[in-house]
Formats: sequence, structure tokens, C-alpha cells
Amino acid sequence: MLELNLQNLHAALQDPILNIPVFHTEIMNRYPKAISFAPGAPNLDFAKDFTPADYIARFVKHLRDDRGLTAQQASNLLYEYGPSRGIINELVAEALRRDLGVDVAARSVVITVGAQEAMLLVLRALRRDAEDLIAVVNPCFIGFSGAARLLDVELVPVEETADGPDLDQLACACRQARAAGRRIRALYVAPDYSNPAGTLMDRGARERLLDLAAQEDLLLIEDNTYGFTVAPGAEVPAIKALDRDRRVILIGTFAKICLPGARVGLVVADQPVGPQGGGRVLADELAKLKGVITLNTPAVSQAVIGGMLLEHGGSIARTGAEKSALYRRNLNVMLDALDRHLGDGEGLPGGISWNRPSGGFFIRMRLPVRADAKLLESCAARYQVLWTPMSQFFLDGKGTNEIRLSCSYLDTEQIEEGVRRLAAFLRGLGA
Amino acid sequence: MLELNLQNLHAALQDPILNIPVFHTEIMNRYPKAISFAPGAPNLDFAKDFTPADYIARFVKHLRDDRGLTAQQASNLLYEYGPSRGIINELVAEALRRDLGVDVAARSVVITVGAQEAMLLVLRALRRDAEDLIAVVNPCFIGFSGAARLLDVELVPVEETADGPDLDQLACACRQARAAGRRIRALYVAPDYSNPAGTLMDRGARERLLDLAAQEDLLLIEDNTYGFTVAPGAEVPAIKALDRDRRVILIGTFAKICLPGARVGLVVADQPVGPQGGGRVLADELAKLKGVITLNTPAVSQAVIGGMLLEHGGSIARTGAEKSALYRRNLNVMLDALDRHLGDGEGLPGGISWNRPSGGFFIRMRLPVRADAKLLESCAARYQVLWTPMSQFFLDGKGTNEIRLSCSYLDTEQIEEGVRRLAAFLRGLGA
Repeated sequence: MLELNLQNLHAALQDPILNIPVFHTEIMNRYPKAISFAPGAPNLDFAKDFTPADYIARFVKHLRDDRGLTAQQASNLLYEYGPSRGIINELVAEALRRDLGVDVAARSVVITVGAQEAMLLVLRALRRDAEDLIAVVNPCFIGFSGAARLLDVELVPVEETADGPDLDQLACACRQARAAGRRIRALYVAPDYSNPAGTLMDRGARERLLDLAAQEDLLLIEDNTYGFTVAPGAEVPAIKALDRDRRVILIGTFAKICLPGARVGLVVADQPVGPQGGGRVLADELAKLKGVITLNTPAVSQAVIGGMLLEHGGSIARTGAEKSALYRRNLNVMLDALDRHLGDGEGLPGGISWNRPSGGFFIRMRLPVRADAKLLESCAARYQVLWTPMSQFFLDGKGTNEIRLSCSYLDTEQIEEGVRRLAAFLRGLGA
Repeated sequence: MLELNLQNLHAALQDPILNIPVFHTEIMNRYPKAISFAPGAPNLDFAKDFTPADYIARFVKHLRDDRGLTAQQASNLLYEYGPSRGIINELVAEALRRDLGVDVAARSVVITVGAQEAMLLVLRALRRDAEDLIAVVNPCFIGFSGAARLLDVELVPVEETADGPDLDQLACACRQARAAGRRIRALYVAPDYSNPAGTLMDRGARERLLDLAAQEDLLLIEDNTYGFTVAPGAEVPAIKALDRDRRVILIGTFAKICLPGARVGLVVADQPVGPQGGGRVLADELAKLKGVITLNTPAVSQAVIGGMLLEHGGSIARTGAEKSALYRRNLNVMLDALDRHLGDGEGLPGGISWNRPSGGFFIRMRLPVRADAKLLESCAARYQVLWTPMSQFFLDGKGTNEIRLSCSYLDTEQIEEGVRRLAAFLRGLGA
């Protein structure tokens, strides 16, 4: 009897719970000596200088000197449960003003456990029932599409062109949804070197997207994850900075250019909610939702990020300047190596091309053949170089001939050697 | 046009997104000088001795001395993204073995952002479709019922008696679900001084529950949150420690007796999943789900908890011993004061009674009148003492005449004075 019942139990647990892409880690693990352009991992050059205790002390000093807390009050803040919305919201709101020209009250900011939790919060807040849809750029960051799967939110893919989301397709999708009695509530877009495609939207494209959002009554979910990897002086305004009517929900993170392990992200949601004139904003609702996800973001983690910001004049851009410069150096080394090894096309099959992002972690490359697990396996075995098949980022089976390349965590010699191997592999495709 | 569209947008955001109880904070805030038995808040006596930097250093020493990491590798571990399952799993598995007699591999443990994230993970993993149900003790911790609402998981309330969940009612609910073509996948239960009811299940009740779970093919979700507030020597075995066939998923937290602000919790899920003999356990699936919720628990937060455990011989019980003793002292002061002020019944209306938990944070009290927001308001205004109406913890409108009392964060003088005021209020009810 017991055994039979356990059988039932196990049968009920047999299938994977969510079909989340696994990035072929089993293949990757079998080639530990390969040079991998697969993960968008942080560069560990900066880890040796990481001194959490100093940053926590800096934040405590700020609490006492600038915010007038007693030593006991400062200790309490690190020790006890904090408010769901966070304890570094003022610092963050000030940094967003300074760095991005995004001018919002601290109340409109919620500090989250990474951008990932922010995505989950926003998706849940915007899904009222099964008729609601969220549009996403296609290919799409799997953290966003995965969170949507977790919450059973139906996504509508909109092709990402070299300029950003295809606006005609988006408008068409909105019309089709309305005709079917449904509604696209928002579009998810990462305008600064998107993951996986490395696309940068220029100012004009951002303004056209805002216009279309107004026309179709859409919210925009702007993912700023790679926003601070741009070269100083070459910044394009955040969509949120161009937003005149609170259409944009901004999601950001300190993971890429401050501290990956802190798991501190943010969401700006200044949309009015509830009875008119009540003064409530969407961030208030998001903080309530956070109460049943993680309750609050760990205080020590927020303190480390707070201390980092304070050490750098309250600026995210300045906090991340060195790391951002290293990531750009790597990207340029890689693009230069690709040009040298592949630029003349000699011995290469036709149909190979790639984009040239000026920031972010990712290069999008098109191949003349199907880039699937089988090809990855043979590439790893014969050439000892790894990459990510792009198809797993697409929601509709596209991208079969594309790969994603990243070199964020490598050193320049590894990048050069990896590109040499990649070039040999690509030449082999023509044979 | 723009304005009209914004109107639509705002209308769509008008209703609260989830109906999560708000604990009458607006009433509480209006009486800042009242003594509050409402929140189950941590006692801040221990905050002044909290030195996160020391604990992080202790954990780093462990990484180098016991786990053979180089200084660079230890820095990397604090700096970079970690595995979704956590970086202190071995320490935690060892502590569970030592403290609770729960003998599981580190692989079956996932470190979460508080018990709250663990609840969300387990609920999502066990919900395969809308036909699935989860049974819960009624009254129920609102973090669990709130997470179920977030995920649209339908709950079945099972009355919590003084011995724990009503087993006849549970068996009946399982039969009814089957008859309706549905299925109760699991029961959520907090056997150690549940929040809100303060119920402790004895060993016999735990064994009977396990037997029923086997008979009905249920999983048990055991919430150990207040498990370490018991007096040394008076421990009742965790249900998971009595579990012979992996029916129990154990959820725990370091919040109550180690560090609230760390937001570090855990879930033990050693249930086999996937193809037989594949060696996969439910914890593997939970770690995958965590990848789209918070990705991983902040490394510095885990390091602080790891350091605390190491400082106390790898034992959660020893880490929390002082705090646990303080919480028991407070509870005993409160129970003693209730006896002195109310025990003789003089001048009191009939129908007042309360339980006498030997641990945890909560006392359950029955009143002869409806304990609603209106009564709370008048009690606060006239007697300057606050409590929590119990009805908001019930899923089915019950508990209207009950209140929850907590004194975890108060000092003994406040408790004595608060009970004096509460007694005056209760005497007033008879007038």
C-alpha cells in the first residue's frame, strides 16, 4: 500500500515542472578545457578587491552622519526585517536622477533581489486574468520568459530588428489581440545591448516606440541591465527618461557593473494606481507583492550596494566605470579578432555575419547551417570552443541558424585563441 | 488621445492586485504610543551585538581552512553569481542532522531568500494544473496563503485543533477532492507553535498525520519556522525526522533565532523526481524554479549565516539559544501576567480563554465578542493596547471572536503593562 502510494507520488513528480532552457550545460561540462563564449558571466578580475565589510561600514557611516541614525538604530536596520520596498531607495532614486536623468520619488522605487525578482513582480502585477498578454522582443532574455512561464503569463513575440522591436509587428499584434477580445498590457524591451541579441536602440527608435505605446495604450517594461556598459559620452537616453506620461516601468540591476553576488536590483514604477488622487503608485503594489515572494531584500546585501554607491559619489555609472571599461575592452578585442580571422571571408562558407555592439555582453552571429546541440557538440569536440545556440531564446522556433557569443569573463589571450578556434570551426563548415 | 489612453491604463491598475491582509497598519500607526501585542517582530536586544563583517570573515576562513579554497576562490564565491541551490548547503545539511535528526544529502537542500521564497517554490512545484489543490491548516500563516494567491493555487482549509490539523476533516477533504476528479497534493502544517495559533503537535499527532499522509498519498509541507524556539530538552521530533518514505518537504528559516535581516531560509526536498534511478530529487527542480524568481540567494547573506553557524559549532540550536531563551522568557512573563490579571475571572465577561504555548511567538485568545477592526480601534483609543484580529488568518470566515497576541519584541515591563491594559479592556467588554 505504502509503496503503491509512493509510486503515485513519484509519477506525479516525473515531468520537469517548467520547461526552462538548460543551456546545454551537460555538453559544456564535458569540455572543461574548451574556451567558452557561452556564458554572460562576470569578470572575476574585480573579485579580489571586493571588501564587503568596508562597504557595509561606509553605509553605516552614512546612516549615522547623513541620516541622523544612532549607532543602535543603524544596527537595527541591518539586523531586522526591513520594509519590502527597501532601505537604499533614496540613494538609488538619486543615482537614477544623476546617471539617467530619470526623475522619480524614492517611493516609486522598489529594491528587489536582482532584476529577476523585479521581472516576476511586474509580470504578476500586470496579469489580471488569462486574457491579458505581454509582448516581448524576440529573441528574449530567458529570465523574463521563464518568469512568465512560472506565472502562466502568455507572451506575444515581436521580432527584434537591428533597431529594436519591429513596430509594425507590435501594432499589428495589439490589433489582433483586441480583435480576439484580449489585450496586450505591456511590451518588454531591453534597449541597451539586449541579451541575447546585443541590440542598441537609438534615440529615434526609443521615441517612436514611446509614440506607439501611447497610441496603443501599452506600458513599456524597460530592462536597463546593460545600460551602464556604454562608453562615457555615447549614452542614449533611457526610455524612462523620455517618458512624459508614466508609460515606462524601469527595471535595473547592480549585478553587471557593481556586484553580481549581491543580488540587488530595482524597479521604478511611478504609475498612479487606485482611486484618483489617492497618491498610490504601482511601486506600492509591487512592494505588497514582494511581501509574498521574498518579503524584503537582505539588508546586508543592500548595505553593500549602498556603500559602493556612497564610495563613488552616489553614481551607478562611476561605481561601475572600471568594470564597464573592461567589458568594452573585451568586446573590442573580440570584434577586432573576428575581423582579422573572418573579415576577408577566405575559405569561409557564405552566410556568416555578426553585429558590432559598442557595449553589453553579447554578439549575435548568423551561420549558414543549423546551430543546434549537435553542431555545438562537434564544435566542442573538434575545435574546443563553445557558444550558445540562439534558438533557445526565441519563443517561436526561429533563430535556428544563429549563435550568441560572449567574452565578458575571459582575458584577451583567451578571446584571441577562442576566435582562432571559432574561425577554424567556421571554415570547417564549408568543407 | 493620450489622456484617454492613460485613463484606460490607470483604470486597469485601479484594483489591488492581490487581496493580501494588511494587518490594520493604518489603525496601528494612529496609536504610536500604544503597547502592541500585534507584530511577531524580532527582539532588537541582539541587534547591537550584530557584526556582519566578523561572520563573513569566519565563513571565508572556513572556505580556506576546511574547504581548501584559495583566497582568490573564496573572494570569487562572495563576488559572483552563485549556484541557485546555495553555497552553505553542506553546513545546513550538517546542522539539520545534528539539531533535528533530519538526515539528508546537501543536494536535497536549497537555500532560499527566507522561508517565504521556499513556500513559493514548493507551491509552484506542486501545482501542475488548476485541478490540483493544497490543504492548509486553518488559521494559516498569511505568507503561505498569500504565495498561493500569487500563484493561483486553490487552498483547502483544514481546521487546526489544539493537537494540530483535524485528521478526520483532512481525510474527508481528500475523499471529496477525488470524488470531484481533483487532487489534494499536500498539506501545509507548522507543527511547532504555528503562526498564528501557537499550536504544538506532540509526537503522537505527528505520527498519526504521517500515517494519514501515507494512506491518502499526500505530501506534507512542514514549516519549521518556530522549531528552534522550544526549550532545550523539550523538543518533539520534526515530522521530517519521523518520515520514512520521503513524504515530508521541510521548510526552515534563520530569521527567528539567528538573523531576521539576512533573509536566509531553506527547503529540504529529497523526493525522487524524473525517470526512476536517475538520481534527481525535487530540490533539483526547486533550484531550477528559483532561477526565475531570485536566481540565487545573495552570497554575503549566506556568508553571514554560514559564519554564525560556524561560530556555534555548526548548530542552529546553539546559534539561536540565547534568542530562543529570551523569547521563552517573554512568553512566560506574558502567560504569568495573563493569569494574574485574568485568571480569577473577576469582573470579566464569560467566554474568554487562551492557550499556553511553551514556545513560538503567539498566543491565541478567544473573546465573547466579535474581534474586528472596530473593536481594535476602540481598544486602541481607550486602552492604548493593540492586538491582531485572528479572522484575517482564516480562509473561510471563521475566527471572528479570536485575537492573536505576541510579545516577542517587547521588554518585560511593557508586557506587564500591556496585559494590565488588555485586562481593563476585557473587563470593559462585560460592561
